Amino acid sequence: MSLRSRLYSVALALFLVPCAVRAQDLQQLTTATREQLDVVKVLMSQEAAWNRGDLEGFAQAYKDSPDILFITNQVNRGFAGMVDAYRRDYPNKGVMGTLTFSDLEVHALDAYFAVAVGKYHVERGKKEGGNADGMFSLVLERTDKGWKIVLDHTTG
Amino acid sequence: MSLRSRLYSVALALFLVPCAVRAQDLQQLTTATREQLDVVKVLMSQEAAWNRGDLEGFAQAYKDSPDILFITNQVNRGFAGMVDAYRRDYPNKGVMGTLTFSDLEVHALDAYFAVAVGKYHVERGKKEGGNADGMFSLVLERTDKGWKIVLDHTTG
Repeated sequence: MSLRSRLYSVALALFLVPCAVRAQDLQQLTTATREQLDVVKVLMSQEAAWNRGDLEGFAQAYKDSPDILFITNQVNRGFAGMVDAYRRDYPNKGVMGTLTFSDLEVHALDAYFAVAVGKYHVERGKKEGGNADGMFSLVLERTDKGWKIVLDHTTG
Repeated sequence: MSLRSRLYSVALALFLVPCAVRAQDLQQLTTATREQLDVVKVLMSQEAAWNRGDLEGFAQAYKDSPDILFITNQVNRGFAGMVDAYRRDYPNKGVMGTLTFSDLEVHALDAYFAVAVGKYHVERGKKEGGNADGMFSLVLERTDKGWKIVLDHTTG
């Protein structure tokens, strides 16, 4: 299955779910905007980069700025430190495992900002730390290099 | 101490901390913008409402919309459901305990959106569930009724 067709099927699944929920409230069906699809593409590219062991590619989804925020059980600040932490915590492809995002939803705030919410699952051998699951919420900014994450709140 | 003077002292503490950190990087001191102070006021009012057992007042910090997102270990949607959940989970002032926000920081995205990040602490008797601590990240929108939370990601 090509990345493009996979993108469309994910995007379809993604926007059918909220539509199905909303149909119960007798609201109108909505279609995905270009903005929403562009943000989904960023996250799909990020997932693909992780799964080929490409941390630099994964990090491209973030804005290269000292001001970005990465929140877990504390607040971490800045692109460079985040990349260093990823390199330290995920020294090889085995520890990275296989990442899958699910239940993605994208909401535009305005023309230049959007939020994305979803779940992650990491499939990984017991020796490498075992499987991991959690939730994330992201704020993304439309920059001249495309949509980039400026705030990432990820919890296990 | 009046609410106003308390607000100023909190805002001062809040913006001195990032300045102190940034001074180490030899960056210029920055002062809080009107936008940042307005968002801080919303959070201080929210804390005050909680601590007088006023859930309706607490909820006023959120946008009254079916689209707002409240994320814990799952995604909850809409103002009405959120208020119901608060009423169910916090039936009285004892269970609500005393809420304190700390390490607050506010970042403007643009004129109409901002993010706020911080920690919460709930001081509460053991019978009522004991103390609770965690992190939160918020996205706020400037509406005609003031700054309102449209996304709340809170984790313990």
